[in-house]
Amino acid sequence: MKLNGIIGYPVTPFSNDNTINIAVLKQMLDLLIKNGCDAIAPLGSTGESAYLEWDEWCLVAKTSIESINKRLPVIIGISELTTDQAIKKAQIAQSYGADALMIIPVSYWKLTDQEIFEYYQSIAQATTLPIMIYNNPATSGVDMSPELIVRMFNQIPNITMVKESSGDIQRMHQIYELSKGELPFYNGCNPLALEALCAGASGWCTAAPNLLGQLPQQLIQHVKNGNLNQAQKSFYQQLPLLRFIVSGGLPKTIKAGLQLQGVSAGTPRKPLIKANDVELSQLKQLLAKIED
Amino acid sequence: MKLNGIIGYPVTPFSNDNTINIAVLKQMLDLLIKNGCDAIAPLGSTGESAYLEWDEWCLVAKTSIESINKRLPVIIGISELTTDQAIKKAQIAQSYGADALMIIPVSYWKLTDQEIFEYYQSIAQATTLPIMIYNNPATSGVDMSPELIVRMFNQIPNITMVKESSGDIQRMHQIYELSKGELPFYNGCNPLALEALCAGASGWCTAAPNLLGQLPQQLIQHVKNGNLNQAQKSFYQQLPLLRFIVSGGLPKTIKAGLQLQGVSAGTPRKPLIKANDVELSQLKQLLAKIED
Amino acid sequence: MKLNGIIGYPVTPFSNDNTINIAVLKQMLDLLIKNGCDAIAPLGSTGESAYLEWDEWCLVAKTSIESINKRLPVIIGISELTTDQAIKKAQIAQSYGADALMIIPVSYWKLTDQEIFEYYQSIAQATTLPIMIYNNPATSGVDMSPELIVRMFNQIPNITMVKESSGDIQRMHQIYELSKGELPFYNGCNPLALEALCAGASGWCTAAPNLLGQLPQQLIQHVKNGNLNQAQKSFYQQLPLLRFIVSGGLPKTIKAGLQLQGVSAGTPRKPLIKANDVELSQLKQLLAKIED
Amino acid sequence: MKLNGIIGYPVTPFSNDNTINIAVLKQMLDLLIKNGCDAIAPLGSTGESAYLEWDEWCLVAKTSIESINKRLPVIIGISELTTDQAIKKAQIAQSYGADALMIIPVSYWKLTDQEIFEYYQSIAQATTLPIMIYNNPATSGVDMSPELIVRMFNQIPNITMVKESSGDIQRMHQIYELSKGELPFYNGCNPLALEALCAGASGWCTAAPNLLGQLPQQLIQHVKNGNLNQAQKSFYQQLPLLRFIVSGGLPKTIKAGLQLQGVSAGTPRKPLIKANDVELSQLKQLLAKIED
Repeated sequence: MKLNGIIGYPVTPFSNDNTINIAVLKQMLDLLIKNGCDAIAPLGSTGESAYLEWDEWCLVAKTSIESINKRLPVIIGISELTTDQAIKKAQIAQSYGADALMIIPVSYWKLTDQEIFEYYQSIAQATTLPIMIYNNPATSGVDMSPELIVRMFNQIPNITMVKESSGDIQRMHQIYELSKGELPFYNGCNPLALEALCAGASGWCTAAPNLLGQLPQQLIQHVKNGNLNQAQKSFYQQLPLLRFIVSGGLPKTIKAGLQLQGVSAGTPRKPLIKANDVELSQLKQLLAKIED
Repeated sequence: MKLNGIIGYPVTPFSNDNTINIAVLKQMLDLLIKNGCDAIAPLGSTGESAYLEWDEWCLVAKTSIESINKRLPVIIGISELTTDQAIKKAQIAQSYGADALMIIPVSYWKLTDQEIFEYYQSIAQATTLPIMIYNNPATSGVDMSPELIVRMFNQIPNITMVKESSGDIQRMHQIYELSKGELPFYNGCNPLALEALCAGASGWCTAAPNLLGQLPQQLIQHVKNGNLNQAQKSFYQQLPLLRFIVSGGLPKTIKAGLQLQGVSAGTPRKPLIKANDVELSQLKQLLAKIED
Repeated sequence: MKLNGIIGYPVTPFSNDNTINIAVLKQMLDLLIKNGCDAIAPLGSTGESAYLEWDEWCLVAKTSIESINKRLPVIIGISELTTDQAIKKAQIAQSYGADALMIIPVSYWKLTDQEIFEYYQSIAQATTLPIMIYNNPATSGVDMSPELIVRMFNQIPNITMVKESSGDIQRMHQIYELSKGELPFYNGCNPLALEALCAGASGWCTAAPNLLGQLPQQLIQHVKNGNLNQAQKSFYQQLPLLRFIVSGGLPKTIKAGLQLQGVSAGTPRKPLIKANDVELSQLKQLLAKIED
Repeated sequence: MKLNGIIGYPVTPFSNDNTINIAVLKQMLDLLIKNGCDAIAPLGSTGESAYLEWDEWCLVAKTSIESINKRLPVIIGISELTTDQAIKKAQIAQSYGADALMIIPVSYWKLTDQEIFEYYQSIAQATTLPIMIYNNPATSGVDMSPELIVRMFNQIPNITMVKESSGDIQRMHQIYELSKGELPFYNGCNPLALEALCAGASGWCTAAPNLLGQLPQQLIQHVKNGNLNQAQKSFYQQLPLLRFIVSGGLPKTIKAGLQLQGVSAGTPRKPLIKANDVELSQLKQLLAKIED
């Protein structure tokens, strides 16, 4: 499997009684496919993976895979504190028919490189699915260096991709150099989308297609075509919105944007709070400006 | 309830089959009582609270409270990502007979002050126990400012204490000033023990009595007696060990030290790894030096 | 004056007696012109501007302007702690015939935005030359936000350009957005060269042409032509050297590289120390690899 | 020479024409002596050492030493970018009769440990005066580790003291441990005064006696007498003012406070700006509160 382009991240919609809203979930997946995504990644940071009960996580994984039904590759996100729980979810996702796993080592006690290595190794040995390392120190509390990431790529067979969300473009340079261009890297920092693609990223992992339609895919096409002026124009058009959804937290802001567009995806799970009126109003203006 | 002095933190011992080792747990609690602790806090960071399955957490809470059996006040630690789970644990701990709760808002998405406030408020409303706010940004990913902490103390009735583990003595100054000396603060950063006490901390939350016997309590007594030279001497004697257990991670280093002292508390839960031979050897030397 | 492309930074060569080596200085300027620079900036960070005695600074400024003799625009660098000294140097540079000034507010006490604003305003009022704001917090100790930079651009007439050396691509985005694309920004962080150009930078301020010949200019041409694959290839070819000269400090590493190429530019001024044998050997290998 | 207690820092007063105000300088020195200082350190950060012209620096050094006239030890501050200039000032200070030197390695390019070592070594070899290493990364841009500081103390004969202004109490612990208690350390971070003394600091380097009279000396006496309750009370009384003068910048805030007390010490040198009306009013309130 060789992934390229836009990897779209759905929210996990909740009903008023705080249970998973299956109908809206399916609607969201269709929306992402319609908006030109090249793959779908349920249960990522946007999907509030870390906040779901065990059964809920399973339900979202199963429903998503069945609903996408091979129209696009499906990458299931896993964010577990203990190795054992992560292994169990990897096996469950495989049994449901996932195409790949995206795994982030969330932490309480900071992990050493050796602990991270063994964490990924143990999970990788328990599944035959390809694994995308997900580095997002701001949420996981663990920062994986390019050296560690490339070492795991070299030594653990089914580690095949990395999503870099630190927002530091120099990390991507180092991954490219250390792996001699062999390890595909994907950008997970929305406001870095243009530069990551220019630096050689294989794709852009993003929840933006939920709100921005086909604009993210268009940016990719401009870069692919060497049309840098158009790419800049497209990027600066999207940038205020990209910055807003990141700084406000993706579950909150994407769900707020969906609400503005008439979709009832519910609120994020507590302690996360839904967008307040000021934020809703800012978001409305940002969206209106883009549609002009 | 007015806590003062040493609040001791037990590890959560595991058997070889990775289940809770109840016998050793009880032994550990007796050890802490014998070593002069003024209160006991099971299921803290040292107790791997965040890594336990739901049933395991309940078992440790129940066993600890019963085993301590009112010999000392018991503060039960809660570290849950969602508000609902934290509330459930608060109620369970109260039903078991806990004297107080120590609550840390672990995070995936960074929490706003408003989200943190509502998190604590919701839990506080669901219990009548006194609550100790636990600020430890290095493990929780959330850093609570003195302003926020004192605001919660002022506005939420059963928030009555704060454990400050950021290691920044200026935070303690600010808590003292903002609360006009009314909010008792406890030091959770071992290498800051001497200065926190000198700045007016009500106590020292620490796993050190597991390995250092009555030395931590002696330090407190020297400070109380205004015997600063003796306090300095005692502190600098303990400091290399305090620094070692913090930088290596408390579950790993305390369990290693217990092993050196003949107690089989098992290894920390994966992805955490037990101390390697080099670390064991360093720890042995540090302990030997203190006993001289 | 509208600058574009490569702005080349010469070193300030010293003779064995620690005085300015005029002959080699002229040779260096010719080298930069030959290597395709679009403008020359003597007395920058690379030129050890901050380390020179008053008379030495004047000598380098005068000699450089006369020696370049209108073949290219000349931007003179000023790094003074006090406003009065900076004004004097601005007037001296103008009297010598400089085309523009590049000014960095070096600090001892951290400066407030108001202090920085008045610093630039006072200097700007004392000269008719265009001024390039130079933001390099790592050397100056002062970090100017995009908001402050664009405000100075809007309110102080002869502030017309900014060199951004913080290495944070998001700053460039913000400068572009806040000035509605009106304020030309130049990249001063060598390992960010590719992405800054892709984000719309007007040029690249760099000492690299001292060692890399026409490669920096070629990278710019590839980007201009929308030939992103060639640009990536060129960038990754130069990157190890770019990283090396930055992390080792430009005066030391560029002078070492010149020495390897047979140019006697002397050593940096103490307390700076010349490259040691290990560094010289690493540099030799990096240069050899590029020439392959 | 064994320094203990309060080392007082005078401002450098300017007249309206921006020249040194000798009369007020002498008045300031007398004030510090009257307020119980144990030594005086002209030309420190408070004294705007880095902002003075060469001749001005000499004038302040000479005048201060003559005016103090052996009533107290005099430590002259040197903050020069190049080694040669620092050596010259060290020799000048000695020729004037200084008792010791306080030297901070201000930087433009970050210095390596080797560069810092050679900087101090070269200066130390050029004088017979005892030298106090001054670590203040916030102003100098260079952060010296305890390891480096203690190595210089061990290997360079006339390095005999260190002023630690990083504000990190752990640095003081490490200096104590690494030097086995042999290297006297002085606290240069005002809001850390209480804890540094409790950790064993030999003294407190401070500009506070300019505004707080004998309160700083009283704090020291309370700590010496093991009267920790009184020490805490005294410290928390001074703390709001200490925090204010540090966060606003010492030259600005101390000169503003002197102005409120009827002393015309002038304004700080540009680009530094004098306190505005809001700041003056805050300062007035803080001072009034202390006098209550």
